[in-house]
Amino acid sequence: MPTYDALREECCEANRLLPGTGLVDLTFGNVSVCDRDAGAFAIKPSGVDYDRLTPADMVVLDFEGQVLAGTLRPSSDTPTHRHLLQAFTGIRAVVHTHSRHAVAFAQAGRPIPCLGTTHGDYFHGPVPVTRPLTAKETGPDYEWETGKVIVEAFHDLNPLHVPAALVRGHGPFTWGASGRQAVEHARVLEIAAQMALATLALDPAAEPLPPHLLDRHFFRKHGPGAYYGQPA
Amino acid sequence: MPTYDALREECCEANRLLPGTGLVDLTFGNVSVCDRDAGAFAIKPSGVDYDRLTPADMVVLDFEGQVLAGTLRPSSDTPTHRHLLQAFTGIRAVVHTHSRHAVAFAQAGRPIPCLGTTHGDYFHGPVPVTRPLTAKETGPDYEWETGKVIVEAFHDLNPLHVPAALVRGHGPFTWGASGRQAVEHARVLEIAAQMALATLALDPAAEPLPPHLLDRHFFRKHGPGAYYGQPA
Amino acid sequence: MPTYDALREECCEANRLLPGTGLVDLTFGNVSVCDRDAGAFAIKPSGVDYDRLTPADMVVLDFEGQVLAGTLRPSSDTPTHRHLLQAFTGIRAVVHTHSRHAVAFAQAGRPIPCLGTTHGDYFHGPVPVTRPLTAKETGPDYEWETGKVIVEAFHDLNPLHVPAALVRGHGPFTWGASGRQAVEHARVLEIAAQMALATLALDPAAEPLPPHLLDRHFFRKHGPGAYYGQPA
Amino acid sequence: MPTYDALREECCEANRLLPGTGLVDLTFGNVSVCDRDAGAFAIKPSGVDYDRLTPADMVVLDFEGQVLAGTLRPSSDTPTHRHLLQAFTGIRAVVHTHSRHAVAFAQAGRPIPCLGTTHGDYFHGPVPVTRPLTAKETGPDYEWETGKVIVEAFHDLNPLHVPAALVRGHGPFTWGASGRQAVEHARVLEIAAQMALATLALDPAAEPLPPHLLDRHFFRKHGPGAYYGQPA
Repeated sequence: MPTYDALREECCEANRLLPGTGLVDLTFGNVSVCDRDAGAFAIKPSGVDYDRLTPADMVVLDFEGQVLAGTLRPSSDTPTHRHLLQAFTGIRAVVHTHSRHAVAFAQAGRPIPCLGTTHGDYFHGPVPVTRPLTAKETGPDYEWETGKVIVEAFHDLNPLHVPAALVRGHGPFTWGASGRQAVEHARVLEIAAQMALATLALDPAAEPLPPHLLDRHFFRKHGPGAYYGQPA
Repeated sequence: MPTYDALREECCEANRLLPGTGLVDLTFGNVSVCDRDAGAFAIKPSGVDYDRLTPADMVVLDFEGQVLAGTLRPSSDTPTHRHLLQAFTGIRAVVHTHSRHAVAFAQAGRPIPCLGTTHGDYFHGPVPVTRPLTAKETGPDYEWETGKVIVEAFHDLNPLHVPAALVRGHGPFTWGASGRQAVEHARVLEIAAQMALATLALDPAAEPLPPHLLDRHFFRKHGPGAYYGQPA
Repeated sequence: MPTYDALREECCEANRLLPGTGLVDLTFGNVSVCDRDAGAFAIKPSGVDYDRLTPADMVVLDFEGQVLAGTLRPSSDTPTHRHLLQAFTGIRAVVHTHSRHAVAFAQAGRPIPCLGTTHGDYFHGPVPVTRPLTAKETGPDYEWETGKVIVEAFHDLNPLHVPAALVRGHGPFTWGASGRQAVEHARVLEIAAQMALATLALDPAAEPLPPHLLDRHFFRKHGPGAYYGQPA
Repeated sequence: MPTYDALREECCEANRLLPGTGLVDLTFGNVSVCDRDAGAFAIKPSGVDYDRLTPADMVVLDFEGQVLAGTLRPSSDTPTHRHLLQAFTGIRAVVHTHSRHAVAFAQAGRPIPCLGTTHGDYFHGPVPVTRPLTAKETGPDYEWETGKVIVEAFHDLNPLHVPAALVRGHGPFTWGASGRQAVEHARVLEIAAQMALATLALDPAAEPLPPHLLDRHFFRKHGPGAYYGQPA
């Protein structure tokens, strides 16, 4: 029986990064990481403090939601993570936080507009906000339906180009190629949200970055023409 | 003669949590914890720094306000705590802070609206603000009257479902089943207040969470159907 | 020849408190402490980092501005401190900072209104802002004239009841019975300013604390009827 | 072959100051320092964490952009730094950050107005914002063109009197006589931006500092008549 050691270690390490980022209070945040070949993902256990998490505490599930390893109860947000990992096949990890400025946009039901290059370096356009869930969607499958409305918001968006979404009235989810990268996206999302809030306070009609500038910034960091950072 | 060791220890520990939460400046905050069987509650002494508090410094009083143990003067807010502990029989501890964003709502005389799930996970609806105290109520029994207007604000609210109130022009009181939980409620209240302020800056007419979503979040954490965290 | 050791020590200690308060950036802040019997006051040297200040670095001057002890150049704000120490005979220490929210009110040319009890516990009414200095007052005696417009703003105010002022377009000065107390007043002023800003964001027409509540709070901490803190 | 040891050391030290200032997140910031006699400048390598930077990691280039020393890829913003170091012959160092409040002004396309003495102590008037770059300027020479629009914004400004600019939709650049001083200017710019934002929230029509007060503050710190700090 596989023990998923590497997966649990990566997942544990990424979860333990959260408090140091300033993005999470109490236990309001969680990271999942998947191994597509193994058909499994690891996720934080529910309501456990970050600083005493060990790899063995991580719960491993398959993509149908059956527990494969671990004795603790997984995060109550597990079905949302599972939905995103299923639907966005190009990603490996998902992060959920209640970071304060991103939550403000989610609570106001507004996408985070792309007002500058800090945003554009990571997100190729506005970060969408989901439609409200109906009363029926807020039933027993609530967390699964939450994943569904996120995916719905990406029907004409590339989740690799905009690795983040806001769930209306709730907060942000981000994703990436690794636990560490998904956490980085959660950090930049919060920074971009804070900057957008301050910008809109100065000018409620602030204009988004023009497409040529957005493309320049996003693609100097992503894709074949990227020239930011050191060659691999 | 009882020495109330366990009560004083819990009370001291909860008071000492306060500075680390970022909720209190100087000595603007205090925690009380009661033992209903013993007919007694412990509270912080007035104007003493948190980092040198010991359990022996805690003042123990009965529910009529007579000192049972301790040599220091109790917090000047003691009658407010005593009133709340008397009136809300389902609680064990009360916290008072001047946390900045919650105070802003108290100073504006506005309840903190329930705009998102961070709020709804802990408070089943808006956090009420008291009516202003009259000149007469601001006399020698001022702190006792402060408790009274809080209780008045809960005439049709369940204090176990909304474990917090704002005293108009003053600041927040929270409560809970233990010193530690009451402090947790004070932390979440401040976070919810900060998020609400930022949300209202984006949209002054932001809508509260719909009832179905509020119920889902509050009751996934509270009551018989709760599924957040680990089984006890 | 006197060496003013106690005075310099108190002054040095109070200056060294500043960075830990979060009120000052770089070297934007200074404390003076006076000994009225000795006819002398000590003040921070100009442009020196707080963490390497020693009592011997403090510059001691008489009330006419003559240096009595010390080899460094005193703070460029020395004439303002000297003016306040001369005019407000009931105080012993003065603090100047550029704390950010208090500066915002100074830059907006608005007094900090007394919107709640955090403010009212320390300041018996709004914290006044000076009139703008004229071009002539901004000449060679600029720092002395700065003291003068502060004193002018107190022509019908008791500086012991409102131990703080905002210099228009500049920032706050506070004072007290000791270096440590004047720093405490600087801290509370900044907190009150931050709370006022957030309150005015929620309600631009927020009402000041009614007089009965202001009196209750200020006088439970000050004067013969005070009952906050421990008996001396 | 010269090794530029002193230059790299100063540049490395200044880059390593950045995270402690709170001005940069992740790797969003960089410092360059030049030696005009040697016709060379050193700059941070692209995408490398600050806490593991060593002087040997600094990349040294000439003013035409040819690498003189170093094996890593220089910051992607190198051509902007190079342009500024070429055009502003009185400076020795350039800093770029995405500090949050300065970015808000850049994203709103507004200069930072000089609303108080904190600003006026360092910047003799408003900090200008560039015009938007055209689509053509956002081509392969984008970073060089970014330098060009900054210089354009200074056609009637003295860069030694206003050692900072905002690139529209992007963020701040500052400069100075040393790496350390350019970082100090980046810190004060962010503080001034935060104060300006809060001031404009209180009064959207807040008035700039009158010229006599601005002159008094700027020139008490700069030029032959300066009397702030200790004599050299």
